[in-house]
Amino acid sequence: MSEKQKTIGVIGLGLIGGSMAIDLKRRGFAGQVLGVENDPVSAQAAQTIGLVDQVVPYEECVERADILVVAVPVGTAVKLVCDILDRFHSGAEAFSFAEKKADASENASAPAWKDKVVIDVCSTKEQICQATHYHPCRKQFVSTHPMAGTEYSGPWAAMPGLFDGRACIFANSEESSPKAVKLIEELYATLNMRPIRMDAAQHDVHTAYVSHISHVTSFALALTVLDKEKDEKHIFDLASGGFSSTVRLAKSNADMWVPILTQNRDNVLHVMDTYIDKMKAFRDAVADYDEDRVRSLIEEANKIKKIIR
Amino acid sequence: MSEKQKTIGVIGLGLIGGSMAIDLKRRGFAGQVLGVENDPVSAQAAQTIGLVDQVVPYEECVERADILVVAVPVGTAVKLVCDILDRFHSGAEAFSFAEKKADASENASAPAWKDKVVIDVCSTKEQICQATHYHPCRKQFVSTHPMAGTEYSGPWAAMPGLFDGRACIFANSEESSPKAVKLIEELYATLNMRPIRMDAAQHDVHTAYVSHISHVTSFALALTVLDKEKDEKHIFDLASGGFSSTVRLAKSNADMWVPILTQNRDNVLHVMDTYIDKMKAFRDAVADYDEDRVRSLIEEANKIKKIIR
Repeated sequence: MSEKQKTIGVIGLGLIGGSMAIDLKRRGFAGQVLGVENDPVSAQAAQTIGLVDQVVPYEECVERADILVVAVPVGTAVKLVCDILDRFHSGAEAFSFAEKKADASENASAPAWKDKVVIDVCSTKEQICQATHYHPCRKQFVSTHPMAGTEYSGPWAAMPGLFDGRACIFANSEESSPKAVKLIEELYATLNMRPIRMDAAQHDVHTAYVSHISHVTSFALALTVLDKEKDEKHIFDLASGGFSSTVRLAKSNADMWVPILTQNRDNVLHVMDTYIDKMKAFRDAVADYDEDRVRSLIEEANKIKKIIR
Repeated sequence: MSEKQKTIGVIGLGLIGGSMAIDLKRRGFAGQVLGVENDPVSAQAAQTIGLVDQVVPYEECVERADILVVAVPVGTAVKLVCDILDRFHSGAEAFSFAEKKADASENASAPAWKDKVVIDVCSTKEQICQATHYHPCRKQFVSTHPMAGTEYSGPWAAMPGLFDGRACIFANSEESSPKAVKLIEELYATLNMRPIRMDAAQHDVHTAYVSHISHVTSFALALTVLDKEKDEKHIFDLASGGFSSTVRLAKSNADMWVPILTQNRDNVLHVMDTYIDKMKAFRDAVADYDEDRVRSLIEEANKIKKIIR
């Protein structure tokens, strides 16, 4: 193991945590990847697939890892990051007490508590940044959002290359120590991600528009069509590629999305209300047989061409 | 040219017409493909790309082709199919009058009017079937909807293999002559399409659910996000793959979609209203911080997994 290689502890071996584990190990950033997974089926799967070198208990992971990656749903992540920072704090205090008593070199194999870093990979940033803001070890926390994913979840969904070429948000990174930020920038550079620094509140507004609302519109579309399917069994014979791509996100996992939508409630609500207004404008134009209004709405929407490929 | 090969006249050299022209010629069903295109830029492009053997005036195309494919937006298609059937009718009458006067073999190189077939490829079926229902040449019309496409349009968007493996609806095919239906089944077999016979009204209900509403939700999503972009220039830096796939259909062409949405108004309106109700249920659950209701809506929507890949 080279001096530069780190021990990474991934807490939550799902799509994001699992995919990070794969590439950080393969690409040599991690000498060793430890995993923590509460769900016994997922833990077994992660070991069978070989996502991590070792599945270990949470406490052991926090103790042994240089970098802890908290990759669990956002509600749990807030609690976990705080708990890990607490452990950094008491670990460092115990260490400085022990230092006075005995030779510190006894502990030389485990990383020093004050050098450890914890990151989260949550889709909402404001709440986790608020919850940690006054923590005495706040500088050891780097709040990130790697903007990548699929509609699938669990260790089975993890894959190499998931993050390549995508953006990674660093939220409120001025609250972290420059050394910690630099280390985590190296981690994401290994994943070929493009770093963007952003205010946590701003991040949550933007993701409400370009990610969260897309999921809600897909959920609503699935609900609409499934409702009809109760009467018309063969309705999906006609489903085209367009339908599949629009409804794809409706497969997304409730454990992940319930806390995102409730944590980002105010922003999401604002976007949903705008969306419902646009939908009603469309509806009324169609209801009135007003071809000119329908045309101008479509032509306005077509401007999205300039923005996405 | 083998005896079996047909002269195909494609009216409207866009995505659908152009893609049919390519594969019908390549795969040997068509000996010759004639094209009609009103827009001079598209006509020039179709010739430059080589989509068809020859771009000809409309009247000449109707005269020379064995099979006419009307591939224009649905409003225009209704008028064109009726006009072509009128020409079949007067051509056959003039021919039977001429037969009495002179040797019919003079006309042997052009296909007999009574053997010609016209098809449409429209996304709505009820109006075109109603408009042609009492036409004396109704049997020479086969109303079809090949369920394939992309969000792009024009001759530049045409591509080989577009239809392979997809479904093709034959609407009210009992009103067409069995011989005409058999011929058009062979045409779509060449395109590797799976034929489904369906009542025109039923078709329009189904497509409202599995195609038209997807487009409307994408248009509304694009409008929502573009609205926000006016204040926040960098909002699209964060757009993920999920957003792109959900908003993709918002690039779709107004010329095509305005008549679809107004022709299928009643069905589309019904689906939009159901959709707005589902969206509001979601909105209210989020507004109330009601995690249980948000969860049960998402889990209900997840059932779409059983239906689409």
